[in-house]
Amino acid sequence: MPALNAHLASMPAGYLFREVANRISAYCRLHPDKPVISLGIGDVTRPLSPAVSRAMAEAALEMSTPEGFRGYGPDFGYPFLVRAIYKNLYEPRGITLSCDEIFVSDGAKTDTSGLQELLSPEARVAVTDPVYPVYIDSNAMAGRGGEYIDGVWSQVEYLPCKAENGFVPPLPSHYVDALYLCFPNNPTGVALTRKELQRYVDWALQNGVLIFYDAAYSAFITSPEVPRSIYECRGAKSCAIECGSFSKLAGFTGVRCGYTVVPRELFGGTLHRMWCRRLAAHSNGVSYPVQRAAEAVFTPEGRRDCKENIDYYMNNARIIRNELRSAGLQVYGGVDAPYVWLRTPHGMSGWDFLDHLLENAQVAGAPGEGFGPSGAGYFRLTAFNTAENTREAVRRICAAL
Amino acid sequence: MPALNAHLASMPAGYLFREVANRISAYCRLHPDKPVISLGIGDVTRPLSPAVSRAMAEAALEMSTPEGFRGYGPDFGYPFLVRAIYKNLYEPRGITLSCDEIFVSDGAKTDTSGLQELLSPEARVAVTDPVYPVYIDSNAMAGRGGEYIDGVWSQVEYLPCKAENGFVPPLPSHYVDALYLCFPNNPTGVALTRKELQRYVDWALQNGVLIFYDAAYSAFITSPEVPRSIYECRGAKSCAIECGSFSKLAGFTGVRCGYTVVPRELFGGTLHRMWCRRLAAHSNGVSYPVQRAAEAVFTPEGRRDCKENIDYYMNNARIIRNELRSAGLQVYGGVDAPYVWLRTPHGMSGWDFLDHLLENAQVAGAPGEGFGPSGAGYFRLTAFNTAENTREAVRRICAAL
Repeated sequence: MPALNAHLASMPAGYLFREVANRISAYCRLHPDKPVISLGIGDVTRPLSPAVSRAMAEAALEMSTPEGFRGYGPDFGYPFLVRAIYKNLYEPRGITLSCDEIFVSDGAKTDTSGLQELLSPEARVAVTDPVYPVYIDSNAMAGRGGEYIDGVWSQVEYLPCKAENGFVPPLPSHYVDALYLCFPNNPTGVALTRKELQRYVDWALQNGVLIFYDAAYSAFITSPEVPRSIYECRGAKSCAIECGSFSKLAGFTGVRCGYTVVPRELFGGTLHRMWCRRLAAHSNGVSYPVQRAAEAVFTPEGRRDCKENIDYYMNNARIIRNELRSAGLQVYGGVDAPYVWLRTPHGMSGWDFLDHLLENAQVAGAPGEGFGPSGAGYFRLTAFNTAENTREAVRRICAAL
Repeated sequence: MPALNAHLASMPAGYLFREVANRISAYCRLHPDKPVISLGIGDVTRPLSPAVSRAMAEAALEMSTPEGFRGYGPDFGYPFLVRAIYKNLYEPRGITLSCDEIFVSDGAKTDTSGLQELLSPEARVAVTDPVYPVYIDSNAMAGRGGEYIDGVWSQVEYLPCKAENGFVPPLPSHYVDALYLCFPNNPTGVALTRKELQRYVDWALQNGVLIFYDAAYSAFITSPEVPRSIYECRGAKSCAIECGSFSKLAGFTGVRCGYTVVPRELFGGTLHRMWCRRLAAHSNGVSYPVQRAAEAVFTPEGRRDCKENIDYYMNNARIIRNELRSAGLQVYGGVDAPYVWLRTPHGMSGWDFLDHLLENAQVAGAPGEGFGPSGAGYFRLTAFNTAENTREAVRRICAAL
C-alpha cells in the first residue's frame, strides 16, 4: 500500500449541510403534505443579468469561428477582466494595485482552500469561530490541524466570536503564522468597521503575520464605515492577501469566477512569486466565456441588475432581522451581509432548534454548531430565498416561538 | 515573517516555453521581414464544434431566466455529463464504472497537479523522462522533490525513455509509492500497447503502487492495439487513477473541462473517500454552461466535428513524420498522438537545434531538454498548426538540414 496522506484520510466527514438535508428529508417523508421552506443554504436564486448571460453566450459562439476561437488563456486571467476588476472594485476606493497583482480564478473556494499551500507544513493558523469550514479543512488536510477532538482541531487557534464581544474576534493570544478573516462574515453576518479591521492589520504588521482576507460578501455592504476591501486599511498591502468572488456579487455560484489579490509588497515579493509559480503549475486559467461573463458584470446593465438582485436579497435580510427581533429573539448580522445569525431561544442547541422549527414551522436553517464550537446555541438564516417564501418562513418562525 | 512553504519558495522558475518565446522574439526583432512558424506549443487551433458552442450559449442564456437559473452544481459534476462520459468513453470499451467514480473538473492540469495531495509528504514518486512538468512540479512544491541539482530532483525516480528502449519506460528500480504514466505520451508522442501497459499494472498490483494515469491524448489513438484507458488492462481498477480531458478531444483548452476516475476498488475505497473529501473542500464544481458544452461533444454533430478536427491534426502529424523521416531524421511518435519527437541532427542539443531552425528555417519547436534530462538531444514538434503552415514549416526544416 502506498504512503497516503494520513491527514486527508482521517478527515472527519463534512457534516453540516448533509445532516440538515437528512433531517429535512426525514421530516418530509413523514409529512408529505407540509412543504418545508429552507433558509438554510448560502446559494443565490435570482437569475443572472441578461447582459452577463449574453456576453457568455456570445463568447461561446465566437469560439466556433476561426477568428473567434481561443485556446489556452493567460494562466492568471485575461487582461480585459483583470483591468475590469481593478477599475471597478479597487480604483474607486482609492486602492492602487498593479494588474499583475490580481489573479483570476474559478472561484473563491478554490483560492481560499489553496492559500495554505503558501505556508510551511508546521505553520500555525488562526481562524474566527464560528467559521466557513474551508479554511480549517484545507489546513487540516495538509497536516496543520493537529488532533481533532470534540469538533476542535488542537493546533488551530480559534478566535471566539459571540454576542458578548459583538462577534468581533479577539487578537490571537498564541504565536500564529497566518490569520483567516472573512468580513462581512459568514456565518454571523457581522461586519467590521474600517477602524476595527485596522487593528488586525496593525497587529499583523507588528508581528509578521499573514492575513488571508475573504471579501466574498463585500457587495452586500451598506454601512459607509465598513471597508469593502482590506486594502482600505493602512499597510494592508504589506500583510494581507484578499480573495473576492463573483458568486454573490453577480449570482455566479453556478458560473464560477473569483479572484485573489497578492500584492508585490508582501514580504519583498516572495509571496507574489510563490503564488504565480503555484498557479502556473496547478491551473490553465479560467474558461474564456466565463471571463467574458464576469467582465459584463461591470457594464451599466450588469451593474444595475446585480444591484437589483442584491437589494432584493438585502430586503429579505431586513425582513428576517426586523421581524425576528420584534418577536423577541436576539438577532445579529443582516445589515452588511445576506446572513442573519440568531441566538436560539430557551438555551436550545442549534440542532434542537432546527428540529423544533421543522416540526412547528416547517422552516429549515443552519445550526451554529456546524460552523465551530462558538456557534453552539446559534442559528443561521439566509436571505437567498424568494421574498414570498422569506416572509412566510418568518411568519411561521414567529408563530412557533 | 510567517513560516512559508520553503519548497514552493525555492522552486526553479518554469522555463521551457518562456525561453522558447524569448528566442523567437529576439529573432523576430532582428528579422521583422521573416515570419516564424511555430510548431512549438501544445495548444489546439481549430474552432469548437458549432454544436458545442451552441450548447454552451444556450446554457448561458438559460441562466438569466427564473426557470433556467442554476446556482451551485454538484461538487463532482452534473449527472448528465458524468453519464455522457461513461456512456461514450468507458462503456463502449467494456469498462464498468459506477457514475460516482467519475469526477468532473475544470481540466486535467487541475487534477494531475492535485493527485499528489493523496500521498504522504514522504511518499516517493516516479515519472517517465522526458515528462509533462506538472507531475514533478506539483510534487516538488509539496516537498517530495528533494534537492534540485542540474535540472534533476534528487528524490524523484526518473524512468528514461529514449530511442534505445523505444521510449518505453523501465519499471522503477527503487521503492516508490506512486508512478505517473501518460500514454499516448507528451512529449514523445509514443503510445504503449495494451500488453505493454499491462506490465505496469501487474507490477503496481504486486508492489502496492498507485498509478496516476494521464489519458489526455487518448482521442488521437489510431492503432487498435493501443488502449484508450488504463482500465482496459486487467486489475487496473485496483491500482490506477485515470485523468482525462476535453482539451484535445474537443478543443477545450480555452473552455476548461476534464475528469478523473477514482475507482472504489482502489485500496478498499480509501482513495475514493479521500478524493471526495478533498474535492468538496477545494472546489465548488465546474461552470454549468461548460458542462453543457462538454455534454454536446457526444452528440452526433459534436462527435463528427471533433473527429474531423482530430483527423486534421493527425494529417499534420503524418506530414511532419513522413517528410522528416524521408529527409533522414530519426522521428518518433505522431501515429497515436499529435506530437512528433525527433533526434536532433549532428548531435546538436535541442536548444542549439531551435536556434539553428530559427536562423535557417524560421521554424520553432520545443527543445527536449525542457522536458527532462532524457530529452537532451531531442526536439518536439506539434501537429496543431494549420495544414498550410505545417507543410511550409516541414519544407523549410528539410531544406535547412
